Amino acid sequence: MRVPVVRDILSANDRIARENRDTFAATRTFVVNLMASPGAGKTSLILATAARLPQDVRPGVVEGDLASRIDADTVAARGIPVVQINTGGNCHLDAPMIRASLGELPLPDIDLLFIENVGNLVCPAEFDLGADLALVVASTPEGHDKPYKYPGMFAAADVVLLNKADVAPVFDFDLDLFRRGVQMVNPGAPLFIVSCKTGAGMDDWVAWLVAECKVER
Amino acid sequence: MRVPVVRDILSANDRIARENRDTFAATRTFVVNLMASPGAGKTSLILATAARLPQDVRPGVVEGDLASRIDADTVAARGIPVVQINTGGNCHLDAPMIRASLGELPLPDIDLLFIENVGNLVCPAEFDLGADLALVVASTPEGHDKPYKYPGMFAAADVVLLNKADVAPVFDFDLDLFRRGVQMVNPGAPLFIVSCKTGAGMDDWVAWLVAECKVER
Repeated sequence: MRVPVVRDILSANDRIARENRDTFAATRTFVVNLMASPGAGKTSLILATAARLPQDVRPGVVEGDLASRIDADTVAARGIPVVQINTGGNCHLDAPMIRASLGELPLPDIDLLFIENVGNLVCPAEFDLGADLALVVASTPEGHDKPYKYPGMFAAADVVLLNKADVAPVFDFDLDLFRRGVQMVNPGAPLFIVSCKTGAGMDDWVAWLVAECKVER
Repeated sequence: MRVPVVRDILSANDRIARENRDTFAATRTFVVNLMASPGAGKTSLILATAARLPQDVRPGVVEGDLASRIDADTVAARGIPVVQINTGGNCHLDAPMIRASLGELPLPDIDLLFIENVGNLVCPAEFDLGADLALVVASTPEGHDKPYKYPGMFAAADVVLLNKADVAPVFDFDLDLFRRGVQMVNPGAPLFIVSCKTGAGMDDWVAWLVAECKVER
């Protein structure tokens, strides 16, 4: 008697994430899914990173927001190709939203695509978009306890970045406690400590990102 | 021929929220659903408010977090009755979670119950918990554009509070732009500007809250 083998049926999201991944591979575009709380500095990080990229790593951006085009306008003003997705209340981006937006971007001319997710430390972690790298950004005003309180998000990260390091003393931010929290939920995850405002730590971060980008492509 | 009238079927959440509301009415407990981004200062606000309450307004707290009991321990250390709900990954509190926690609180001895929701500017707005007042807390490090980007949350607020006012200059926070955003999505909503750290603005906020609490009970 033959035993029927039930194939792993991918969810609609994961199936479309795979299609996105194939599209990105075809255009040799390295894709970063950028997740963080509201106001952690996602757009600032994209701009500060883009400004430090070598000539042969051309950036592009997908902006995800519930509403408004504030971030896309900011990015476009720097001459970076960008498309805005308004989720209309949805608390995260999903693979079909990304798929629908890709026609608006010159992907063959984009080496490094940032997808700025909706500001939310919970829901975005659960949706594969087809990205190569999951980047979680925390910021010192949020407090050093975030990895303990939002373990799912920090566990989903391929790399963690702590922004607004310049104002850490103002908020009595305990870096050691934060670092231990990240390591607890995601052992070995690289952690970069930066300030998009002052530029501190940005060179190390960008060097690491560019190396990842070149390996993958 | 009789026309059948279809009764409005409440969802399970709304039905239980109504039960919660009946319970709170029976114990004359005024209930605040406190919603904000991660790290906006929800717990600090609860503590700073509780410290300024008159003797006849006795506080209590329900702490909602994905994981950990950090906030509940902080509140308990001040001698305030508290129960911690761990949502186990869920991005918001719901009415059944509140219902299940109420047995752990001395409700007849609590005049003002703060429900600290999961840090999230999206999902919690959609779930009625049975509270009397929806309080949305923003903080200056998050930036002045939040009402424009997260209109659903600010529209759901009965009152908006802007915390960390003391560090507004550090973050180039444009109060006028923030205020206009709040008024755009929620015309007439009261807005209090405070710093839990310095105490600035707290007396006005607490006087308003106590008055609301006494009217409702």
